[in-house]
Amino acid sequence: MSDKSKISTESYKGVRDFYPEDLFVQNYIFNNWKKTVESFGYLQYDSSILESSELYKAKSGEEIVNEQTYTFLDRGDREVTLRPEMTPTVARMVAARERELSFPLRWYSIPNLFRYEKPQRGRLREHWQLNVDLFGVDSSLGDVEIITVAYQIMKNFGAKDEDFQIKINDRKLIKKLYEKFSLSEDISYKLSKAIDKKDKMSSASFEIAVSELIGEKSAEFISLLESHSKLLDFIGDNEITQELAGTIEKLMSLGVKNIYFDPTLMRGFDYYTGVVFEVFDTDPKNNRSVFGGGRYDDLMDIFGARKVPSVGFGAGDVTAKDFLETHNLLPEYKTEIQLYICTVSDEYKTNAMTLGQKLRETGARVSVDLTGKKLGDQIKNADRQKVPYIICIGEDEAKSGEYTLKNLDSGQEKKVKLEEIASNLS
Amino acid sequence: MSDKSKISTESYKGVRDFYPEDLFVQNYIFNNWKKTVESFGYLQYDSSILESSELYKAKSGEEIVNEQTYTFLDRGDREVTLRPEMTPTVARMVAARERELSFPLRWYSIPNLFRYEKPQRGRLREHWQLNVDLFGVDSSLGDVEIITVAYQIMKNFGAKDEDFQIKINDRKLIKKLYEKFSLSEDISYKLSKAIDKKDKMSSASFEIAVSELIGEKSAEFISLLESHSKLLDFIGDNEITQELAGTIEKLMSLGVKNIYFDPTLMRGFDYYTGVVFEVFDTDPKNNRSVFGGGRYDDLMDIFGARKVPSVGFGAGDVTAKDFLETHNLLPEYKTEIQLYICTVSDEYKTNAMTLGQKLRETGARVSVDLTGKKLGDQIKNADRQKVPYIICIGEDEAKSGEYTLKNLDSGQEKKVKLEEIASNLS
Repeated sequence: MSDKSKISTESYKGVRDFYPEDLFVQNYIFNNWKKTVESFGYLQYDSSILESSELYKAKSGEEIVNEQTYTFLDRGDREVTLRPEMTPTVARMVAARERELSFPLRWYSIPNLFRYEKPQRGRLREHWQLNVDLFGVDSSLGDVEIITVAYQIMKNFGAKDEDFQIKINDRKLIKKLYEKFSLSEDISYKLSKAIDKKDKMSSASFEIAVSELIGEKSAEFISLLESHSKLLDFIGDNEITQELAGTIEKLMSLGVKNIYFDPTLMRGFDYYTGVVFEVFDTDPKNNRSVFGGGRYDDLMDIFGARKVPSVGFGAGDVTAKDFLETHNLLPEYKTEIQLYICTVSDEYKTNAMTLGQKLRETGARVSVDLTGKKLGDQIKNADRQKVPYIICIGEDEAKSGEYTLKNLDSGQEKKVKLEEIASNLS
Repeated sequence: MSDKSKISTESYKGVRDFYPEDLFVQNYIFNNWKKTVESFGYLQYDSSILESSELYKAKSGEEIVNEQTYTFLDRGDREVTLRPEMTPTVARMVAARERELSFPLRWYSIPNLFRYEKPQRGRLREHWQLNVDLFGVDSSLGDVEIITVAYQIMKNFGAKDEDFQIKINDRKLIKKLYEKFSLSEDISYKLSKAIDKKDKMSSASFEIAVSELIGEKSAEFISLLESHSKLLDFIGDNEITQELAGTIEKLMSLGVKNIYFDPTLMRGFDYYTGVVFEVFDTDPKNNRSVFGGGRYDDLMDIFGARKVPSVGFGAGDVTAKDFLETHNLLPEYKTEIQLYICTVSDEYKTNAMTLGQKLRETGARVSVDLTGKKLGDQIKNADRQKVPYIICIGEDEAKSGEYTLKNLDSGQEKKVKLEEIASNLS
């Protein structure tokens, strides 16, 4: 510590410090995610944030890796990237053990992800994201299950059906539409990107963008996007439309009533091959996508592994918190500590510590005041930390082994012996 | 996906993929840590792995940052480091809110940490570390509590007192010894580093190293390190020896009987100012430090903040796992899934999904087979995943609403109605 110049106490730009009250919220979100996906039989996996950059280049192109990720050379001249998303990693892990794993796999993880961009509302340089994936089910029942998991997460947060909508589309359906218009692969790709940005531009701008790509057919094309019945008539009754209708029907029968077909729903990632879906907040104050996902059956290709049908989604912690705040669904801060032990004077600190140890053996969570402050200040400390119960130790308590257990909320007091304390804390 | 060259499925060098069975072990370790420290009233915090490099330079010097950490320039020309340890971060967070926080603080975190070095047994490029810190208690009671937490972690893992030893020393005591030998600050520093490496060299090499630093006094110096009574006689009865004796005595009275004074215990970090301690595995097969910590009262200096007395420790996941494996204390893999629902044929999949949804409402963790495989293969799948119970749905079950609940371990079967299933799963 020879250099005495003062160092900033701020965190690095675009990332967050989680003080205990912040982590309380974070853990509330994580625990609801975990509880919900585990109730569907999903198992947790994890990996490192460090990945070889080639993992992302194959799918996303060098530009994205170089401009939107944290990428650097290590001293062995390996190009390393801080993972910007989890899907390539989980696909890598599945491909690595494809022969040993018994499918279907239900897997989830809550990784932190990094992107190099200007921090803004809902988009930070580091965020956490629940990733839920079902590998090895190629029927639409897999889509149904994954969307039911997404729905159940919202319900378990306390959201009502009218608080959110689930929009669904199928990439195969849109591909069929493009075929009917005889569009090239290149034009189709650009058109999908334009439709993906539709909600962020005026209808006039959207019309111009479409017309630039497909010329005079643009008016008909747009009218089809705007009317579901016209669109389905145009595409005709086939396997794809039947399957999508069946998926929506099954979801309805499982209680997912707020599901809507939306042919303009695209999702950004190129790797989706079938159903895509997105959960939207219906509140005008936070009218945006909360999270989404879809089917990606061809991703194992990049590892040269056998094809594994896959469907999943990713849900971020920042958008989850925004949704919960908008709908007043965040719980009030509560501490895990059940009991705070104070002492009348310092000579009873050892008694307090011994009592604390004995209570921990019975499963209690106990904080012992070690400050040597005045009794009143010790009690204030317990109160500030929102600990519900206190016991103060002085001569009488040390001698008799009988204590006064006080509830700081209600002010109620009760005389208790050691063995009675734990059962009185819940 | 235009580039079809195959990508490696291996993880980046020196980091780990956690498949569900690996994460089961990791979560077992984390959960024991959490449960133990929360029973002492410690609250969880967290932060980002990205920190400004200056945070480490102040304390550790540029060399360490450049050679032993992942450090790179971001596009705003900021020097960023992947945190190699958590103490500077938590000190930064405490210093940032020093005026608002009410002390003492009991805080913990389980961050992942990064170091750039050759991966070897017990030392990887990424590992996780429990960090436990008590801020704002300057009496030795704080040291007693922190060491009790360390002890309790080992006990809650199922370790017996004879499986480990806790060695304790006080930096102030060693400082006193150096003063009695009239050693300069520079020589004292080098001597501490030599003593820290004592166990890794022969006694002859150690004698030479000490003699090179303090010349003819080295024989007397070494004999003092080897005999506690001679050392304490030499230093004389004073506040420091009394305090250390008191700390050991209080720990004994709290049940920590495997605590031993060791004047050669140094610990690597320069920031320790008082008590240092280390937990050692006593098994000859794994005879090494499991984890340790100490008091660091001056670290807030680097932020220009008020002095906050601090004591804490860090315990890594890799050494924890090594200890547990050595002593046969790792639990067998168990799945969270309670029930697996199979179907006689595909037409009952929707019934199976509906039953699954209903059971989840009662808190059950249920996996529904969606594969369309033969019934026997579905049951095998449940068995391979170690799910304890199955239900198979066919015509009878769909019509009657009565199911046969089978325990795959015992083979026992029981006829149950929907509302009886959940209570039969535990």
